[in-house]
Amino acid sequence: MAAMTKAGTTGPDVAMSQQRIAIERVTPCVEGGRFPAKDVVGAQVTVEADIFCDGHDVLRAAVVFRHHDVNTWQEAPMSHFDNDRWRGFLSLSRMGLHEFYILAWRDLYASWRHGLEKKKVANQTITSELLEGRDMVIEALQKHQKTAALVKTIGEASGDEALDRLLCSEETASAMASYADRANLSTSNHPGPGFPLLALRHKARFGSWYEMFPRSQSGDGQRHGTFDDVIGRLPAIQEMGFDVLYFPPIHPIGHTNRKGKNNSLKAEPGDVGSVYAIGDETGGHTAIHPELGTLDDFRRLVKVAERHGLEIALDFAIQCSLDHPWIKEHPQWFRWRPDGSIHYAENPPKRYEDIVNVEFYGKAFPDSWIALCDVVRFWIDQGVRIFRVDNPHTKPLPFWEWMLREIHDYRPDVFFLSEAFTRPKMMYRLAKVGFEQSYTYFIWRNTKEEITSYLQELAYGPPREFFGPNFFVNTPDINPFFLQNGGRPAFLIRLALAGLLCGSWGMYNGFELCEATPLPGREEYLDSEKYQLKAWDYDRPGHIKEEIAAINRIRLENKALWDHRGVVFYNIWDPNLLSFGRWSADRENMLLVFVNLDPHQGHGAHFEVPLWEWGLADHEAVAVEDLCEQHRFIWQGKVQYMWIEPAPLPYRIYRLTPRLDKGG
Amino acid sequence: MAAMTKAGTTGPDVAMSQQRIAIERVTPCVEGGRFPAKDVVGAQVTVEADIFCDGHDVLRAAVVFRHHDVNTWQEAPMSHFDNDRWRGFLSLSRMGLHEFYILAWRDLYASWRHGLEKKKVANQTITSELLEGRDMVIEALQKHQKTAALVKTIGEASGDEALDRLLCSEETASAMASYADRANLSTSNHPGPGFPLLALRHKARFGSWYEMFPRSQSGDGQRHGTFDDVIGRLPAIQEMGFDVLYFPPIHPIGHTNRKGKNNSLKAEPGDVGSVYAIGDETGGHTAIHPELGTLDDFRRLVKVAERHGLEIALDFAIQCSLDHPWIKEHPQWFRWRPDGSIHYAENPPKRYEDIVNVEFYGKAFPDSWIALCDVVRFWIDQGVRIFRVDNPHTKPLPFWEWMLREIHDYRPDVFFLSEAFTRPKMMYRLAKVGFEQSYTYFIWRNTKEEITSYLQELAYGPPREFFGPNFFVNTPDINPFFLQNGGRPAFLIRLALAGLLCGSWGMYNGFELCEATPLPGREEYLDSEKYQLKAWDYDRPGHIKEEIAAINRIRLENKALWDHRGVVFYNIWDPNLLSFGRWSADRENMLLVFVNLDPHQGHGAHFEVPLWEWGLADHEAVAVEDLCEQHRFIWQGKVQYMWIEPAPLPYRIYRLTPRLDKGG
Repeated sequence: MAAMTKAGTTGPDVAMSQQRIAIERVTPCVEGGRFPAKDVVGAQVTVEADIFCDGHDVLRAAVVFRHHDVNTWQEAPMSHFDNDRWRGFLSLSRMGLHEFYILAWRDLYASWRHGLEKKKVANQTITSELLEGRDMVIEALQKHQKTAALVKTIGEASGDEALDRLLCSEETASAMASYADRANLSTSNHPGPGFPLLALRHKARFGSWYEMFPRSQSGDGQRHGTFDDVIGRLPAIQEMGFDVLYFPPIHPIGHTNRKGKNNSLKAEPGDVGSVYAIGDETGGHTAIHPELGTLDDFRRLVKVAERHGLEIALDFAIQCSLDHPWIKEHPQWFRWRPDGSIHYAENPPKRYEDIVNVEFYGKAFPDSWIALCDVVRFWIDQGVRIFRVDNPHTKPLPFWEWMLREIHDYRPDVFFLSEAFTRPKMMYRLAKVGFEQSYTYFIWRNTKEEITSYLQELAYGPPREFFGPNFFVNTPDINPFFLQNGGRPAFLIRLALAGLLCGSWGMYNGFELCEATPLPGREEYLDSEKYQLKAWDYDRPGHIKEEIAAINRIRLENKALWDHRGVVFYNIWDPNLLSFGRWSADRENMLLVFVNLDPHQGHGAHFEVPLWEWGLADHEAVAVEDLCEQHRFIWQGKVQYMWIEPAPLPYRIYRLTPRLDKGG
Repeated sequence: MAAMTKAGTTGPDVAMSQQRIAIERVTPCVEGGRFPAKDVVGAQVTVEADIFCDGHDVLRAAVVFRHHDVNTWQEAPMSHFDNDRWRGFLSLSRMGLHEFYILAWRDLYASWRHGLEKKKVANQTITSELLEGRDMVIEALQKHQKTAALVKTIGEASGDEALDRLLCSEETASAMASYADRANLSTSNHPGPGFPLLALRHKARFGSWYEMFPRSQSGDGQRHGTFDDVIGRLPAIQEMGFDVLYFPPIHPIGHTNRKGKNNSLKAEPGDVGSVYAIGDETGGHTAIHPELGTLDDFRRLVKVAERHGLEIALDFAIQCSLDHPWIKEHPQWFRWRPDGSIHYAENPPKRYEDIVNVEFYGKAFPDSWIALCDVVRFWIDQGVRIFRVDNPHTKPLPFWEWMLREIHDYRPDVFFLSEAFTRPKMMYRLAKVGFEQSYTYFIWRNTKEEITSYLQELAYGPPREFFGPNFFVNTPDINPFFLQNGGRPAFLIRLALAGLLCGSWGMYNGFELCEATPLPGREEYLDSEKYQLKAWDYDRPGHIKEEIAAINRIRLENKALWDHRGVVFYNIWDPNLLSFGRWSADRENMLLVFVNLDPHQGHGAHFEVPLWEWGLADHEAVAVEDLCEQHRFIWQGKVQYMWIEPAPLPYRIYRLTPRLDKGG
């Protein structure tokens, strides 16, 4: 087709010339399609794009998609909704990687009818238009067996009125929609592949995590806990409504340079060491600390936990104690000093003398990558499906991208939580390369402005497409000042914010007991379980176990709470009071939550009932169900008043429905 | 490298594993690199990216670029400036397409020194570190001839102090920067091509356009104007400071269904017809209307105009009168009706019976594309370098993308102005596919809020990278209500806004005479020159020719005005008053402009002198030069007061400099 005139112009490329319709700004899309967007199985994903073309013809568009291991594509129509923006929906019915792209074309038949109608309204002659329409329809349909009768009828028709009736009939319209060629068919991905979209299991976005150290579950600070002790704890954890039980590392712990209590450099006799100094002569990342039990005990624990509705999540921490078997077996996976000693971990001038880092490049590549991947496979084979990854931001991004893909190919129901309390771009990049869940900055977001702007970023900014926040209220590493200073109401405030703002939330044990004794002046716990055994009195007075159970129950019963993305902040005219709505994607389930962010005193203010969300006028009413107090009433009128004391409950949770006949 | 363990894990791809450093959000970038970003020759383009890596090592980055027809790449260093964002600069020294990409790597030597310094400060032993450093330096440098002596000296050194001095010397640092391998060298474009960047000629972004109909330049409404009449007008146009002279179509005009005065459907005898009904029996798009003169006359006009500092811009309007030669020569380029008559242009129920559209697909493809491209080439060969394109949004986008590339390959100094007063996404897409300049919505942006938000979008939104606005104050098609209703001050307001906010601005003749007689109730001119000859009295009282000349002189003398992107809006506390700063890219030239947007009455308000822009405290001073009144003074203190009457001048233009010794 490379025609040329005497002036020397080379003709256009045919394929390029056919891309007549512009398709831009496709969402969901992460880094131009370099990484998959994510949503959960069962979700109806909204796909949008700017779609437009020269001229005034009627356009059509569709989103085309498939699971990556299926050869057949499905097609869902898109429709224009505003200013050249189009929207369609695709349903994720299976876990794993999908791909999609967008098609757009000119609908010549619809354009012809559009012009015809306008001319009829203007009382213009349409004889010529009808003949043009006849030719177009016959040309489009005559290739198809099924429309032979219709083509014959149209071909034999005469007179404007008969032709008009036939050409504009339902039958012709339907036949044209099914059989006519799509004019100037253009694709969003010309040139290039489709957009990737990952369907996650539901629990990757909706789960309630409970974290504890198995070795501290004996109830006796002098006796090392066992997996059987953990089994004894399961009913209580289930009662609080948790469904993920997460353990810091359960592996053997090194002896050399072992850390003592409160992270002291020298261990005393009897000190158990840091669980993060992984490995001793008896085994490394695939071994179990002998005092916890055997691998059989662990597998039994996994099964019993499952009967209590609890999935076990393990810690994946890539570092070794100085006694880890890999150091002798694979010296090329570690750094050595000129004097022949091993190079322990450091962040100058800080030194971590009880651990060494694994190398990823040089002589370690690719064997250390493969070995680490095989560690994860090993635990998958023991029944584990959830991993929390320690400090992933200090290991190479390509390693994670590769390993997570390997694991997802192996078992698509496995998911990973990234423990990267680091700079925002790295935190987000880890989610892009494959982590389903991430710890977030939530733990340090306490004011109305901080919470609102952070949730806006997660729910409506670019992270919406790829980032799965898990709102932990505390961790063994972080004893937030807000909890240290706010007493029991502070714990309830953080509980409500975490559990009601995010699909995934978590706590480290002690939170339910309002434990916040710090290392003085630090955001850390005194006598941290990272370095010693501990005995907990799980029934000590002042606990908030009932409140936790209530929040987890409300979460389960209201699908609006299964995903952080349906949050909308509403007006309440006091900086200490937060009001937010939670909407399910189908808008059938709606909660309105109020939190007094001040743990020290009560506050009151007028607020808006978002009547407009249901198309109600400002004087109309909604039915309200108080999910904490279990009673029902009516809000009549948009502006109402609310007063909340920090105790007994610093929050209110209401389910709203516009159906008055159900309320009152 | 596809190693595998017993568990079945396949090893990672080596090339992918080496992309250890994340490089994201590269700018300038249009649609992920699908289209080129644009800037002018001579510009220093700022390239930015998010660049980060696991761990704490020192990173380096560089932007690598070349002109697309040169094989050698240039490299410019980038540096970190904020929150993992890096910045570098590349200089465009030649017109045409460039490409660039970003490299990032770990600097092992700098990381080593960084750790060493911290350990020294903490008084730790560094013997082992020095030996590691020695090994690293020797390994890096021993491959290179030029560093043989240095390697020998380092190899023979003994003792911490000597090694420390040698390894941390300027010489070693410099040798390592030059010769050491770049660890984990990562690229922004893995996989994929670099980012395209187009260098335009200066006038594509900075020009003052004057539009007129050559046939109306005889000074006698009864006599058809000629190119010689236009030549007679050149000194006056030059005196107003214009540098582009733009003509609507100058081709023969069809007879069939010719339009009469004021767009009437029937022409009277003697009516000259619409200039947009192109072509008659004597010729089409490459012919000249015989009453204007010959092709030789045209070429002579181009040359004389050049001597007056004026470049001729032609209209490229893709439609034909019913008498255009192509209709007989290439019937397959047009649509025909079943009765054998030609299908004239329509937008039902409106009909344009004096013109027919050219087809781009079907049997017309690719010949009509090539013929149209050859039309442009023809005029280029007559000396034309600037084209205004009529209604490009009604022709296929792939046609423009292809044709503009063909033309730019032929002559990179040719540029095109898109006349697409259409929906925003189409307007922007035309710029993306290759139009250097675009008409904008400026003509309908009159209030402070409208002007501010539109300029923010153009100067700081995505269009910043690809969109070249040309602020026309009126056109033969648009006689803005603001001018119809505001009198002489309204013309001065629009003059100042167009000329001082945008590098390219334009007017259609009559504007300098404050002509705004409308078709009643319409935003159109009465007795439009599109359909009839007209005689203008270019010296009639009330004209604003001196003011236009002053604005164009100030534009020439202040590089801050050569590009719309250096605009910053400052506080002035009155909604009728607009205050904006204009900064040159090197920040050496700064104007502060005030406009009273109300043509009917005076307004006054306090405003802020942006002392902070020079790091000055609120009580300090700047020297001020009034560029309209040619006097100088001092502003002492941040808050000042300003009153502006609509007459004689509704604007103030000040050049500010923090150098007090030059002012006062």
